[in-house]
Amino acid sequence: MIEHSDIIDENIIQEGSDVLFLLDTKRTFLINIKKGEKLHTHKGFIQNEDLIGKKYGKKVLSSLGYEFVALKPTIYDYIKKARRSTQIIYPKDIALIVVYSNIGPGSRVVEAGTGSGALTCALAHYVKPNGRVYSYEVREEFLPKARKNLKKAHVLEYVELKNKDIISGIFESNLDAVILDLATPWLVIQRAYTALRGSGCIVSFSPTIEQVVKTVIELEKNEFVGIVTIECIMRKIRVKEGATRPETLMHGHSGYITYARKAFKKSNDLKPLF
Amino acid sequence: MIEHSDIIDENIIQEGSDVLFLLDTKRTFLINIKKGEKLHTHKGFIQNEDLIGKKYGKKVLSSLGYEFVALKPTIYDYIKKARRSTQIIYPKDIALIVVYSNIGPGSRVVEAGTGSGALTCALAHYVKPNGRVYSYEVREEFLPKARKNLKKAHVLEYVELKNKDIISGIFESNLDAVILDLATPWLVIQRAYTALRGSGCIVSFSPTIEQVVKTVIELEKNEFVGIVTIECIMRKIRVKEGATRPETLMHGHSGYITYARKAFKKSNDLKPLF
Amino acid sequence: MIEHSDIIDENIIQEGSDVLFLLDTKRTFLINIKKGEKLHTHKGFIQNEDLIGKKYGKKVLSSLGYEFVALKPTIYDYIKKARRSTQIIYPKDIALIVVYSNIGPGSRVVEAGTGSGALTCALAHYVKPNGRVYSYEVREEFLPKARKNLKKAHVLEYVELKNKDIISGIFESNLDAVILDLATPWLVIQRAYTALRGSGCIVSFSPTIEQVVKTVIELEKNEFVGIVTIECIMRKIRVKEGATRPETLMHGHSGYITYARKAFKKSNDLKPLF
Amino acid sequence: MIEHSDIIDENIIQEGSDVLFLLDTKRTFLINIKKGEKLHTHKGFIQNEDLIGKKYGKKVLSSLGYEFVALKPTIYDYIKKARRSTQIIYPKDIALIVVYSNIGPGSRVVEAGTGSGALTCALAHYVKPNGRVYSYEVREEFLPKARKNLKKAHVLEYVELKNKDIISGIFESNLDAVILDLATPWLVIQRAYTALRGSGCIVSFSPTIEQVVKTVIELEKNEFVGIVTIECIMRKIRVKEGATRPETLMHGHSGYITYARKAFKKSNDLKPLF
Repeated sequence: MIEHSDIIDENIIQEGSDVLFLLDTKRTFLINIKKGEKLHTHKGFIQNEDLIGKKYGKKVLSSLGYEFVALKPTIYDYIKKARRSTQIIYPKDIALIVVYSNIGPGSRVVEAGTGSGALTCALAHYVKPNGRVYSYEVREEFLPKARKNLKKAHVLEYVELKNKDIISGIFESNLDAVILDLATPWLVIQRAYTALRGSGCIVSFSPTIEQVVKTVIELEKNEFVGIVTIECIMRKIRVKEGATRPETLMHGHSGYITYARKAFKKSNDLKPLF
Repeated sequence: MIEHSDIIDENIIQEGSDVLFLLDTKRTFLINIKKGEKLHTHKGFIQNEDLIGKKYGKKVLSSLGYEFVALKPTIYDYIKKARRSTQIIYPKDIALIVVYSNIGPGSRVVEAGTGSGALTCALAHYVKPNGRVYSYEVREEFLPKARKNLKKAHVLEYVELKNKDIISGIFESNLDAVILDLATPWLVIQRAYTALRGSGCIVSFSPTIEQVVKTVIELEKNEFVGIVTIECIMRKIRVKEGATRPETLMHGHSGYITYARKAFKKSNDLKPLF
Repeated sequence: MIEHSDIIDENIIQEGSDVLFLLDTKRTFLINIKKGEKLHTHKGFIQNEDLIGKKYGKKVLSSLGYEFVALKPTIYDYIKKARRSTQIIYPKDIALIVVYSNIGPGSRVVEAGTGSGALTCALAHYVKPNGRVYSYEVREEFLPKARKNLKKAHVLEYVELKNKDIISGIFESNLDAVILDLATPWLVIQRAYTALRGSGCIVSFSPTIEQVVKTVIELEKNEFVGIVTIECIMRKIRVKEGATRPETLMHGHSGYITYARKAFKKSNDLKPLF
Repeated sequence: MIEHSDIIDENIIQEGSDVLFLLDTKRTFLINIKKGEKLHTHKGFIQNEDLIGKKYGKKVLSSLGYEFVALKPTIYDYIKKARRSTQIIYPKDIALIVVYSNIGPGSRVVEAGTGSGALTCALAHYVKPNGRVYSYEVREEFLPKARKNLKKAHVLEYVELKNKDIISGIFESNLDAVILDLATPWLVIQRAYTALRGSGCIVSFSPTIEQVVKTVIELEKNEFVGIVTIECIMRKIRVKEGATRPETLMHGHSGYITYARKAFKKSNDLKPLF
């Protein structure tokens, strides 16, 4: 149960709080509030100290007189601001992966690869407080960055980072979901099948259609059912009375999402049930 | 903490368990297992009793020899199978609404209108175990159906159904998010502003562009910031080696999603912070 | 030069004229006007005779009192009403094929396969009066239907129908464009290369991505340049003051269009030109 | 009738010929061949003179050893390379406008506004040799540029440029099509109605949805029938064996296309025809 006093506290900016300063929808700055420090932007600076004790949502003026809003960061703000060394994953794709993997509070999930931890952040956000994300990454050099990003987003405690090649093995079992965002997802399907509970979900995200075809073939071979591949084309609409229109430039493609569920292989007792 | 014994139990079908029988991706049947009852389909019947004690994911043959998989229903399976008296909302839209409203375990959310409770189910799924959805519906006749659908999806305990017109007032305050899926969202913006905590999120889903324009104008008037409108065009891909292509028929449009965040109005102390 | 008297004549419905009777955007009827005949529809009948001597664009009432507009058929009306035994091709795809093949009045074009002659009709329309379409179809049984459709659309004189397998050879040379709408376009690329004039255009229309990949590989092998593949997603917008929105159902995919241009192979004299 | 000798001539580059030098699909250079001149590019220069007497499609090396293909420009190459002072119009939109306006060789068309003449070029290309485009432009300063672009594209003789405000009047009558690409198309609908022949086509291109709504209302008031609004979302596909995918960035929106046809107003004799 959430205590009222906690709610109040969470809404007040304090020393050590994270703040997303929003100038407009395209220009935002994520910082941790520290006494004596300043946020420097091309539109002037903001003294951190002056925010302390104020409510999230407050408007402040920079030294050059520009208005910024001090917002409380969402999990997606953390993701967007994460230090990256790998390809980005968009909120829309995260949204669809979360939905089609059927995860929620309490879910136990394997994910690979960790990369910079962007998708990991979102998965951790949705399985907390009592679920867990086991995140595999074969490239050791990514783990410090991922750990940093997860810590910044306050979800590290729900994640187990593993410096292992998921193609060689999955060490967890009875999983609710396996989520793949790697170059060769088809090489992991068989191990994912073994690691999932019956009826558990697999979701794979791949930029190219050849990856999708290979993955679907492997899913079919391994008794997965309900196999569906989708792509989501998202457009921003520029809404202005008398001049409303979709934006000219858009991201036409990020990746295809394939999802399926584990069925058990036919057993000898598979005969008409009557 | 999830106990191992619980996990086992949840994976075994018992008297009173829900099962989604999947024939193929387009034909599924959601039932509650009861001894002595049969599921009748156009491909033969299945004796409920024979599933008891079996694991989710098991394949069974109908009386006519067709193979069905006994899956554990996801929250979206419950939504898709909900009795409806209102327009449907697609998983992709639910996914985006959940993401852009920034809800998660523990969030306190107001939603309107309840309708048949489809979106309510999803919101409740993501705010559990310690969050809460306050769902407003002015049309009294919808509430019994919504309650039934929420109960079937096992999330009723996280929801407070309210037979009230949200246009007349929102009784909660300090909310994390307000989510609107109604004909005249622009009439609710001012009250939503008051009910939200600073930095809280509002998300509105509307089929027509005129609704969007009116809503955005009202958001701008009420000190909401970071206002963005998107639409998501989703295509299924028919994946088959040597014959892969997007499906011919698709749903070209369900609705536009507009999201924004609450900033506090300029106060007298709004002067450069230095 | 068009004589004014001709223009007048073309706008007056006469015995033997074609008329498209439009009830609404989805229900139209294409007939040839004959004295003593009636058009029978589910909304009543219309006496052909009463149209004679009237201008195209005239509104008439059916025997049941429904209003129809007597329109002069466009080339696309003929295409939509053509008797079909093959897959349809949409006006949007025809439009893009015409544009990317760069044809116009006077162009000499090879097309395969003819099918029911839908695309052939459009190509003939744009190359007339002094261009020519050579249309290859290996399946003899399609030719009578194609001929009938071309005759109905008044463009047969600009077309040479050929009952030949284009994979075995193209008999024309120095062509402005080669247009392929067949199952294995990659098998025709080499012959198309030989048959085209330098700088001439090839356009291939294929429903599946695997067809596209094979075709592009073959184009690259054969010194084609400027190779581009596109897909066009078209939505109808339901425009109604206060309730404007894209239509719910749409055709998500018909096919990919690949186009390229012929360059000559490197010759021995290919050295810096200075 | 095209003489064979003409065809040969047209395929040989001569002094005064136009050549599109293609480096790759994104980098092309359109010039008129003149003895003694060089094409200077960031990849070296090409001596014009060395192309004379060669066939279109020839590959040449620049002074720095880069390969260029000497293509014969298409009407869309001219359009893309036209000097612009107004917003661009894409080939896909031109394609759809040409198709839905039902123009072809011999059509008499009014267009407004001319702008830099991009759409005018395409319309002229399709109505030649015996049709005519009457192009209205109220802003006098655009006409010299439009004239230059039309001349370069070799279609000026099929166009009558008019420095007039189409809102004040259309001086032609009995037109096959009226094509509108201007800020306030709804103000022209009534005059377009009068100027069109019965059954003639109107096509309007507008970036914003509010323009579309106003235009459709006006079309409905003026006895236009078969009114349809579409938008076309085009994606380029990056085809590469093993790594095929839609391009990341695309143009999400250029404009909506609305088309309709002229019916005559109900006359007194409109009674059941039997």
